[in-house]
Amino acid sequence: MTERLIVIGGDAAGMAAASQARRRRKVDGLEIVAFERGHFTSYSACGIPYWVGGQVPERDDLIARDPATFRDKHQIDVRLRHEVTAIDLDRREVVARDLTSGGEVRERFDLLMYATGATPTHPDWARTADTQGVFGVQTLDDGAALIDWLDGTARRSPSSDRLRCRQAVVVGGGYIGVEMAEALLHHGLSVTLVDRGEQPMSTMDPDMGVLVRDALVGLGVDVRTGCAVTGLSAKDGQVTGVLTDAGEIPADVVVLGLGVRPNTALAAEAGLPLGLSGGVRVDQRMRVPDVERVWAAGDCVESLHRVTGQSVHIPLGTHANKQGRVAGINIGGGYATFPGVLGTAITKVCDLEVARTGLLEREATAAGFEFVTTRVESTSRAGYYPGAAPMTVKLIAERRSGRLLGAQIVGRSEAAKRIDALAVALWNRMTVDEMTGLDLGYAPPYAPVWDPVLIAARKAMEAVEATG
Amino acid sequence: MTERLIVIGGDAAGMAAASQARRRRKVDGLEIVAFERGHFTSYSACGIPYWVGGQVPERDDLIARDPATFRDKHQIDVRLRHEVTAIDLDRREVVARDLTSGGEVRERFDLLMYATGATPTHPDWARTADTQGVFGVQTLDDGAALIDWLDGTARRSPSSDRLRCRQAVVVGGGYIGVEMAEALLHHGLSVTLVDRGEQPMSTMDPDMGVLVRDALVGLGVDVRTGCAVTGLSAKDGQVTGVLTDAGEIPADVVVLGLGVRPNTALAAEAGLPLGLSGGVRVDQRMRVPDVERVWAAGDCVESLHRVTGQSVHIPLGTHANKQGRVAGINIGGGYATFPGVLGTAITKVCDLEVARTGLLEREATAAGFEFVTTRVESTSRAGYYPGAAPMTVKLIAERRSGRLLGAQIVGRSEAAKRIDALAVALWNRMTVDEMTGLDLGYAPPYAPVWDPVLIAARKAMEAVEATG
Repeated sequence: MTERLIVIGGDAAGMAAASQARRRRKVDGLEIVAFERGHFTSYSACGIPYWVGGQVPERDDLIARDPATFRDKHQIDVRLRHEVTAIDLDRREVVARDLTSGGEVRERFDLLMYATGATPTHPDWARTADTQGVFGVQTLDDGAALIDWLDGTARRSPSSDRLRCRQAVVVGGGYIGVEMAEALLHHGLSVTLVDRGEQPMSTMDPDMGVLVRDALVGLGVDVRTGCAVTGLSAKDGQVTGVLTDAGEIPADVVVLGLGVRPNTALAAEAGLPLGLSGGVRVDQRMRVPDVERVWAAGDCVESLHRVTGQSVHIPLGTHANKQGRVAGINIGGGYATFPGVLGTAITKVCDLEVARTGLLEREATAAGFEFVTTRVESTSRAGYYPGAAPMTVKLIAERRSGRLLGAQIVGRSEAAKRIDALAVALWNRMTVDEMTGLDLGYAPPYAPVWDPVLIAARKAMEAVEATG
Repeated sequence: MTERLIVIGGDAAGMAAASQARRRRKVDGLEIVAFERGHFTSYSACGIPYWVGGQVPERDDLIARDPATFRDKHQIDVRLRHEVTAIDLDRREVVARDLTSGGEVRERFDLLMYATGATPTHPDWARTADTQGVFGVQTLDDGAALIDWLDGTARRSPSSDRLRCRQAVVVGGGYIGVEMAEALLHHGLSVTLVDRGEQPMSTMDPDMGVLVRDALVGLGVDVRTGCAVTGLSAKDGQVTGVLTDAGEIPADVVVLGLGVRPNTALAAEAGLPLGLSGGVRVDQRMRVPDVERVWAAGDCVESLHRVTGQSVHIPLGTHANKQGRVAGINIGGGYATFPGVLGTAITKVCDLEVARTGLLEREATAAGFEFVTTRVESTSRAGYYPGAAPMTVKLIAERRSGRLLGAQIVGRSEAAKRIDALAVALWNRMTVDEMTGLDLGYAPPYAPVWDPVLIAARKAMEAVEATG
């Protein structure tokens, strides 16, 4: 008997699940229909800042696989511009609206994959006005709109006006915020970055975030921290400034990089259980607990944090892909589990590389850990080798046990991906003492004889010993 | 009471031990004398190819700390050009010859640190003749001699002779061999690389070594594999060619990169125990077993291979430093152990990056493992991000258990240090199945959404499943 899988959301998690399910169950055993309310499937939202910045030339470069590929190669019936508006678990049906025609369809399912992703958190002030010149950067349409604006104003500006550098204000100094600040610099705009926190990049401890601040300032970005946005000013429907608790900042364009929250309205209405983090709850196999044959994955779910043991919402393409794959294997009759996350994340600000894994100080404190922290300065290569660049490595280790709890790296080159070795150490609950012996790759063009990671482990070990 | 530590060998292991011992025991409790038969202390032998190649401008750039620093900052009495010729364990004395004056001294010790390093393996044909133009690359003096020759012949050559490109033959296609081939290319020589194996870089499996060969050939190196050297030809005391079982190869200069063996003659004579690998035996704390208060570390000892559980001789600066530190901590009254090695190693051939950790196929077979191998092609960055470079990752995983046994990477950029994540996974005895879930850093400028390491793990997992 042919069963029917309905996938809600045609991005990374949903389409990874659909593809994996198809690998295991052919079309005579499993029909797959995927509803996507947007114009695209499986695109790299993480790549949008680089598209806006010009490093990635074309929108389509960001699309991993298009609907035609899914349809023809995988026999997955992808329906774009279809928004699922209701899930009826009793009747095992979804209701979907065709956003083009306005019509509505009801579709029966045996298995359901919930992969609706996340929505940008827009505060009231950003939502109220229908103001031109205010952009999010969540979807390809968002990116296209911003690029159109940047190109259009560049063309429209009379030459006299060109002398005045266009002003951009980026609200939010997290990953997307600093990436967008860089992208706007590439367009020749004068950029102000506004963040409420002590330092930009609040996903790092402030003593590491200050390095990001210094880099941004060095690039010419006006960084305003401890600064809360209260509203926008506009003239003739076009934004003219950002209002803050420290006065108005003039703006020709405003980019919102305020993070996202799981897209769970539909799930909540249908009675799918939500966790404390706000995401849909899932079990080890990405099943929604206590609901028959319903699965969820990606930016709409919560994940187990392997260090704290608590549920967290960490929206990231790499998790969405892994979770979707796990769900798809299970839907397809295989067995796979998603083992949780460490909060590993990396980015760059021009040539400054920024990376973290595990807990920050405030997160370790909140989780109840007592810990030591150490920060070391080293270089990416042997000091005598050309191109050796400075690198700062910070470790957080549990008091007494010396167990690694978190790590952060900021450096000028070959820094970001060094977090991977630390992430694998953290995954395996290594102590900083044991880490001092790790057999990492050494050659002068790639590392000093003591890799920065090992130097940090040594210093952390001494700090652990000192506290007893 | 003041005790006396004698250190035999003033390079990485010996001086790391001396420094650590000094950190824990001040000069009124521990006198430290270090004998070094060469002209230098604590230098980076691994850096010699880059000095010869010209990337590192000065010899002294390779010297981490000079004798004056040890003497003045650490109160370590370093005696250069002093060769220890005998160890008397009963009388707790060493005999050292002053190579400058020819005089001999006897020095008493309470504690002894044996850190004599390794010696290049020179076959008979390389030892017999007193032929000019034949160079090793083990010591700074070796490097200086080769640089003098390269500079001198460049100056001496009459302009008519300059039209003929000077011919270099590098014997041995391991790390040092390929690094020296690159260095000689930088000097404008025509380079032939001779190796007995199926492919150069026999520290990789042949299917990965062939990628190194292709790169060398692409650079213009004449690679001759399956080719055994039988002797040298010379004229007027100057080398003119390398004789092989496949004929003579003309040579103006010959560089020997044939590996090293532990320097244990002195140890054997004194009755220190040697292992099957040829290195001095040591326990977890780098003590020589059954010999009171004698320690050994570095290229002269054997180490535990963490995957096979067997003793191996893997001479590498990073191990020497770690082992010396462990010995020094213990000598100083602290507690530290050396946990063994994985055989991690990285190098480059111009822009080709080469890395390995754990076992090769032939090593896994020799150790009695049954295993699967997988090889994947991916890219260093998101495919759409500028500079995304090809990368080949090979994994070897135990049959049934799926435990990782070894990994190899060859790529064009950001490849070599990716081995670290695999080395930490191997260290922790992870299975390829568990590795598919690893939370590695993802951002388009640094990795595809599935890092090459994760793609390889997925494929290896499927291979393990297929064999049952």
